[in-house]
Amino acid sequence: MSSTIAVPVSLADRLTAAKASSLALATATTEQKNAALRAIAAGVLAAEPSILAANELDLANGRENGLSAGLLDRLTLTSARLQGLAEAVLEVVGLTDPVGQVVRGSDLPNGVKIAQTRVPFGVVGAIYEARPNVTIDIASLAIKSGNAVVLRGGTAAINTNQVLVDVVREALAGAGLPADAAQTIDEFGRDGANELMRARGLVDVLIPRGSADLIQAVVTQSSVPVIETGAGVVHIVLDESAREDWAVDIVRNAKVQRPSVCNAVETLLVHKAAAERLLPAVLGSLAEAGVTIHADETALPYAPGGVPVTDDDYATEHMSLDISVRVVDDLDAAIAHIRRYSTQHTEAIITNDLGNAERFLAEVDSAVVMVNASTRFTDGGEFGFGAEVGISTQKLHARGPMGLPELTSTKWVVRGSGQIRG
Amino acid sequence: MSSTIAVPVSLADRLTAAKASSLALATATTEQKNAALRAIAAGVLAAEPSILAANELDLANGRENGLSAGLLDRLTLTSARLQGLAEAVLEVVGLTDPVGQVVRGSDLPNGVKIAQTRVPFGVVGAIYEARPNVTIDIASLAIKSGNAVVLRGGTAAINTNQVLVDVVREALAGAGLPADAAQTIDEFGRDGANELMRARGLVDVLIPRGSADLIQAVVTQSSVPVIETGAGVVHIVLDESAREDWAVDIVRNAKVQRPSVCNAVETLLVHKAAAERLLPAVLGSLAEAGVTIHADETALPYAPGGVPVTDDDYATEHMSLDISVRVVDDLDAAIAHIRRYSTQHTEAIITNDLGNAERFLAEVDSAVVMVNASTRFTDGGEFGFGAEVGISTQKLHARGPMGLPELTSTKWVVRGSGQIRG
Repeated sequence: MSSTIAVPVSLADRLTAAKASSLALATATTEQKNAALRAIAAGVLAAEPSILAANELDLANGRENGLSAGLLDRLTLTSARLQGLAEAVLEVVGLTDPVGQVVRGSDLPNGVKIAQTRVPFGVVGAIYEARPNVTIDIASLAIKSGNAVVLRGGTAAINTNQVLVDVVREALAGAGLPADAAQTIDEFGRDGANELMRARGLVDVLIPRGSADLIQAVVTQSSVPVIETGAGVVHIVLDESAREDWAVDIVRNAKVQRPSVCNAVETLLVHKAAAERLLPAVLGSLAEAGVTIHADETALPYAPGGVPVTDDDYATEHMSLDISVRVVDDLDAAIAHIRRYSTQHTEAIITNDLGNAERFLAEVDSAVVMVNASTRFTDGGEFGFGAEVGISTQKLHARGPMGLPELTSTKWVVRGSGQIRG
Repeated sequence: MSSTIAVPVSLADRLTAAKASSLALATATTEQKNAALRAIAAGVLAAEPSILAANELDLANGRENGLSAGLLDRLTLTSARLQGLAEAVLEVVGLTDPVGQVVRGSDLPNGVKIAQTRVPFGVVGAIYEARPNVTIDIASLAIKSGNAVVLRGGTAAINTNQVLVDVVREALAGAGLPADAAQTIDEFGRDGANELMRARGLVDVLIPRGSADLIQAVVTQSSVPVIETGAGVVHIVLDESAREDWAVDIVRNAKVQRPSVCNAVETLLVHKAAAERLLPAVLGSLAEAGVTIHADETALPYAPGGVPVTDDDYATEHMSLDISVRVVDDLDAAIAHIRRYSTQHTEAIITNDLGNAERFLAEVDSAVVMVNASTRFTDGGEFGFGAEVGISTQKLHARGPMGLPELTSTKWVVRGSGQIRG
């Protein structure tokens, strides 16, 4: 499948075209946007042969360039993955359109009516690495929230992304919306990514998704406002009064259910007065599930097959069946450890002490703080948002799981009848 | 008055001290924070002799360095201005504390309770120029919203700011809060400002206040997230159907009532079919009020004492009794002009045509869009916020007039009873 719609040639032209088309997206009806999404879902399925051919080309290049097995897996599309991608787009069709929602409003004493109203950002930029599914994912969420989108999905996926963006552009055009509202800039390489990060005025917000290095690079170099979707060095504290069954179940769930995601636990901090009571069952259960336990001196005797923990371990998001375990003197020491090593994503405490629970919730400065629940609940779907744009670890604009409303800004709409200020 | 509280010496130490003290501010009760604010108000009055002496020193330096009359005026504190400053702090005492407010929440089907709860940012940085009143203003708003604050108020006001920050630090200590939650870094000059802009992890958000140049510099150079409080090149459109009395009253109010502020109108765009009917009265009223009218060819004959308008005029925030006037072919041309020259602060249309009103509200991409009201209403006080942190012209986090809640972030507080993810 090759696009029948003319694509601007230079990067500057593409950004300008995205900006120019953003007004049409911002004022499109929900039905128009849903029609475009349905056409994307259908297009992804209809274009399967050309998508898989392009993907095979990227995979061959990747193997030649020595890409890791993990990267190659993330890069791979299959018939089943395309089916899942199309279904995810149709789920976005079912989500509430945030545009036009009134966040708050009032009638001023002089009769002037003010209403803070959700509006699209305009142009959303995305920088990510070798995950072609993100191309369709972000494009769908951007379109539903009324935004144009500029995608920088990495050279490793350039052929796959090109075909996918063609699908999106034709779907937009078919729904009577400007094809230019979706742009890929992979062919401009690293220079293109740098230009995207400096495109203030053309790009309204930039969302990096991928490795910690990628996100740090974007966050420190971009002059376009960024929503940081960060890594998760996630902690669970086992307090002196923690119930053993909850400790065993929650720690195992948080580590084992899906170790490769950002809300999986990386470090367990155990109150020294609870170590002897809890560690045998908690660490036994982890070992049974195949977890490698990196334990400090005190915990090591309780860790089947355990290895000594290092300072580097405490700072690492393993994304694998590895966990660090440290015994601490008290809650203060646990909170101090978290303050030092946490990426401020999610931290939980297992406790039956109300005072300690409230202290933990108040003093731990993370996007999500939990008592007696698995850290795996930090998720847009679990929170009831329907779909997830990502999990923000910054404090500005959005923090924690983001839904469609987090892809919008607001404007104040003011309606008067001749009022002037006294 | 000189501080009896030890101040960290290096800039890095001051930022670290502010960060370390931010937890105490974040968990302080409303009553503690209000006690600190009352002590600041009292301290500003009690320290009048030393504040005015320090201010006289800054003014003498300013005169020696050839500061403009406008800058010298902004730099000047008087007994009456200190009284006003103290009263403004006491108004902040009366504002609702945003910390702890639950923005939204729900019980998940499995019984887990989630609540998105307002929390302070942590450390708020402010960069501004030669306006010592901002020192007290921002410090008070930061403290009430539970934030520590780092102030870079410019070398021109260094002596005044030092005394004022001493007042704030002693007030904090008197209320049982850490004095280090308020820091000035004026003595480190431009290098200090640059270091502040790169202090990710120590400073959570940076708010520039002042000239367009200052704001642009911060916005493009800072790796700390910024809330842009921008300049206002504000437009009013007189549509074909505009009522003459509303046009005259609103334009005059928007230009003349307080020309030096960002919500004052800078450019008037007049539908050509309304020019002959409206311009004599509208421009006559402006001229009578002493406004210099920069008019295009079509409007010039109606402008008493008018001068030809330039492209530069259209792009300028005069902040004075000057206005640009342009006659346009239709609403499309008016919106196109706004898209080119607006700083996306506030734009208004005077019209009796419902369709044009709705088009204007939908298609003009500014923080505040108005129909038939004076642009001077873009103001936190007028919007009912009690006090105003500034007017944000960016789309991330806050847009338009900001109140205390805009100085907070949120965290998700999750309370379970042993739930794990299935």
